[in-house]
Amino acid sequence: MTQFDYDLFVIGGGSGGVRAARRTAALGHKVAIAEEFRFGGTCVIRGCVPKKLFVYASQYSEHFEDARGYGWNVGETRFDWPTLIAAKDAEIDRLEQIYSRNIESAGAEILKSRAVLEGPNKIRLLATDRVVTAEKILIATGGRANPFADLPGAEHCISSNEAFHLKRLPERIVILGGGYIAVEFANIFHGLGVDTTLIYRGKRILQGFDDDLRLGLSDAMQAKGINIRCEDTIVRVEQKADGRFEAHLKSGDCLDADEVMLAVGRLPNTEDLGCDKAGVKLDHTGAVCIDEYSKTSAPNIWALGDVTNRLQLTPVAIHEAMCFVDTVFLNKPTVPDLETVPTAVFSQPEIGTVGLSEQVAAEQFPNVEIYSASFRPMRNILAGRNEKMLVKLVVDGASRKVVGAHVLGPDAGELAQILGVCVKAGLTKDDFDRTMALHPTAAEELVTIYQPSYRLLDGKRQDG
Amino acid sequence: MTQFDYDLFVIGGGSGGVRAARRTAALGHKVAIAEEFRFGGTCVIRGCVPKKLFVYASQYSEHFEDARGYGWNVGETRFDWPTLIAAKDAEIDRLEQIYSRNIESAGAEILKSRAVLEGPNKIRLLATDRVVTAEKILIATGGRANPFADLPGAEHCISSNEAFHLKRLPERIVILGGGYIAVEFANIFHGLGVDTTLIYRGKRILQGFDDDLRLGLSDAMQAKGINIRCEDTIVRVEQKADGRFEAHLKSGDCLDADEVMLAVGRLPNTEDLGCDKAGVKLDHTGAVCIDEYSKTSAPNIWALGDVTNRLQLTPVAIHEAMCFVDTVFLNKPTVPDLETVPTAVFSQPEIGTVGLSEQVAAEQFPNVEIYSASFRPMRNILAGRNEKMLVKLVVDGASRKVVGAHVLGPDAGELAQILGVCVKAGLTKDDFDRTMALHPTAAEELVTIYQPSYRLLDGKRQDG
Repeated sequence: MTQFDYDLFVIGGGSGGVRAARRTAALGHKVAIAEEFRFGGTCVIRGCVPKKLFVYASQYSEHFEDARGYGWNVGETRFDWPTLIAAKDAEIDRLEQIYSRNIESAGAEILKSRAVLEGPNKIRLLATDRVVTAEKILIATGGRANPFADLPGAEHCISSNEAFHLKRLPERIVILGGGYIAVEFANIFHGLGVDTTLIYRGKRILQGFDDDLRLGLSDAMQAKGINIRCEDTIVRVEQKADGRFEAHLKSGDCLDADEVMLAVGRLPNTEDLGCDKAGVKLDHTGAVCIDEYSKTSAPNIWALGDVTNRLQLTPVAIHEAMCFVDTVFLNKPTVPDLETVPTAVFSQPEIGTVGLSEQVAAEQFPNVEIYSASFRPMRNILAGRNEKMLVKLVVDGASRKVVGAHVLGPDAGELAQILGVCVKAGLTKDDFDRTMALHPTAAEELVTIYQPSYRLLDGKRQDG
Repeated sequence: MTQFDYDLFVIGGGSGGVRAARRTAALGHKVAIAEEFRFGGTCVIRGCVPKKLFVYASQYSEHFEDARGYGWNVGETRFDWPTLIAAKDAEIDRLEQIYSRNIESAGAEILKSRAVLEGPNKIRLLATDRVVTAEKILIATGGRANPFADLPGAEHCISSNEAFHLKRLPERIVILGGGYIAVEFANIFHGLGVDTTLIYRGKRILQGFDDDLRLGLSDAMQAKGINIRCEDTIVRVEQKADGRFEAHLKSGDCLDADEVMLAVGRLPNTEDLGCDKAGVKLDHTGAVCIDEYSKTSAPNIWALGDVTNRLQLTPVAIHEAMCFVDTVFLNKPTVPDLETVPTAVFSQPEIGTVGLSEQVAAEQFPNVEIYSASFRPMRNILAGRNEKMLVKLVVDGASRKVVGAHVLGPDAGELAQILGVCVKAGLTKDDFDRTMALHPTAAEELVTIYQPSYRLLDGKRQDG
């Protein structure tokens, strides 16, 4: 029998924490998991899941438009925001209950309380002001939207959190940010009929993604009426007498809006967590410092997910949790493998991507071959929709390996998942060439580009 | 200078013939291509392309239903068949022109005529009753719907050809057949609001596909109101006084219908082609006999595509054309690689599949592991749609290779194309396991099933 109340205490009921708690409890250890808000974490409660439900909702306006080209006469359509919110909330409730049930059936104890560190083995539960002890502690408190408090008028602004619970759909929204959250919400609001402006200080949205994806999406968004203003930012937000807002821009312009949304990055949830009392070091961003096994500077404390400074993705947190349990409770030291992680931006059109962008590949390999195709997907033709699809393979000319695969267009996220298997396995361009096309699909373009579109030798593009 | 009018004469302007003509002409050879109807062949003119456009059209009725769950109030919708037909025809015209232009720009001569063999090097053009000579001849005349002429009343029935040009949308249709064409059209007509019955003599639709796909699709189609009657067939079709039809079934029942469609297989187009005059042997089905290099029994005549008895798929015909040119004009003997060809059924839900079914794998391997998951895709949840998605990997337990990958659900065809790369390359289950999930997608289920759902040892399923 251990001298502690618990073998493992998990702080935070998101995807990573829950997986670690469930799996450790299922091994027969005494485990508790504390969550101050709702089980499911960012992903289920105010991230991936509700976001994607909103994406689905917002896609219907284009379906209604497209249907006409196929012979459908669609009567007047009207969108009711409260209906969507209620349906989304019901689904989130359902998923949260599944999370809770899964924890319980694995035998872990659920503590509905904020938990903070009091010492290397001590945790204080604020709801009951009780102190418990644990042999091992896992910090999985996640992250939150950067409140951007330095911005004058930030208190008038919403983040993605509030966007999921707005009382009414704004007529006009101004979104600050150029990352995937800003971009996804710009598409969601536009699709739901909101006059949408995206303000981003950088030269082009979605820094870090392949430039062709960035340019293609940016063009497509603007073509459908989303106002994108790059190389500008909001310097001040003021509330007007009628309750609406004015976003004053660095460029001198001023935009009226019913809502101003800030999507300018996320911060790790380490504030007032007591890391100092437990000997857990943070980096300059406030993220928990960890070694390759997710161990913190304290000998019996680990951390994973968005509270650490790695890839902020749900499956990554879950994978880190699996590796943590392998390492700590199964005596099988396992380093999370964060190489070649496929990701998506659920914009409209969608982005799906895995591996290296053309730009990064050109820095790493002396001879890069680009195989790309841009075309109107068949569905768009009768729809009268000019939006093009882009597929692109980035190939290391020496090894023939496909080191990057990029898609902009319908189902890009689904494609990127399976392209992720191909790129992770180190398949070559010849493996793609050997595969028979499946006609008619959009994905067949990925296996039927036999000649490079162009090459990059020592980083320089060779045309013609 | 050759003693013949042409170096290569291609009979048939479908995907395979056109590719062979273009590529050979581009190499500098004198090439003619004869087509009696329209360039583009079955695929473009009355197959894959118009079919998929119909599929898109028919999907909107479910979009309209689903939108309600997402907060959309959709006014009365009405489908106008002539609008779809006109839009489809315009698109087919556009594609046909692209085909013609591509042939011309490659330098091949277009002959708008039925062409028949008169001898080993002689072709008669029926439009002008002119005889030309060619050193080499390629038969690429394709196939056609089996008219099922033995059926009493077959003359009252339509095939897929006519389905693309019906003057008006039927209120009730009876479709005979259980293959992919019958199944796709059943879904198309149902989606467009037609009361649809599918009659199939076999035990279950889509023979040869994985049984779980067959059962899953069959259940889903019936759940949405398509009447499927297996182990029955039509024995007689009669026209009634009002112009409509009665389909009399073997079971004794009689179904009223505005149209009766026969989709009972396809026949190779070798009738009256003069194969006997040129020494080209046919098999018992009327298909041209060929060797592994697509060569017929005549020394200077080749055949490819649906007129031969291989896989009847557009990309296969194109691949055979590429191999033909490599072999015959580039002195690089190349056998078409028809192993592990991904295919789709554009039903609703869709099927995408590559490699071995569970049933075939169980015959070939002593130890088969099945990894399968059945779930409601996220989009269906708020939509209130109960339809489930199925993903399934068939793994050879000894080598760990994924020998089959099967999907029933949205975008299954797109997924199967990229799964085709994985299976063709011989990737193992570990390659799938190593790939990070992309959340939230449906495809992530394919990389997150870590434990076999069950095993088959020496063909026998082991449960629990």
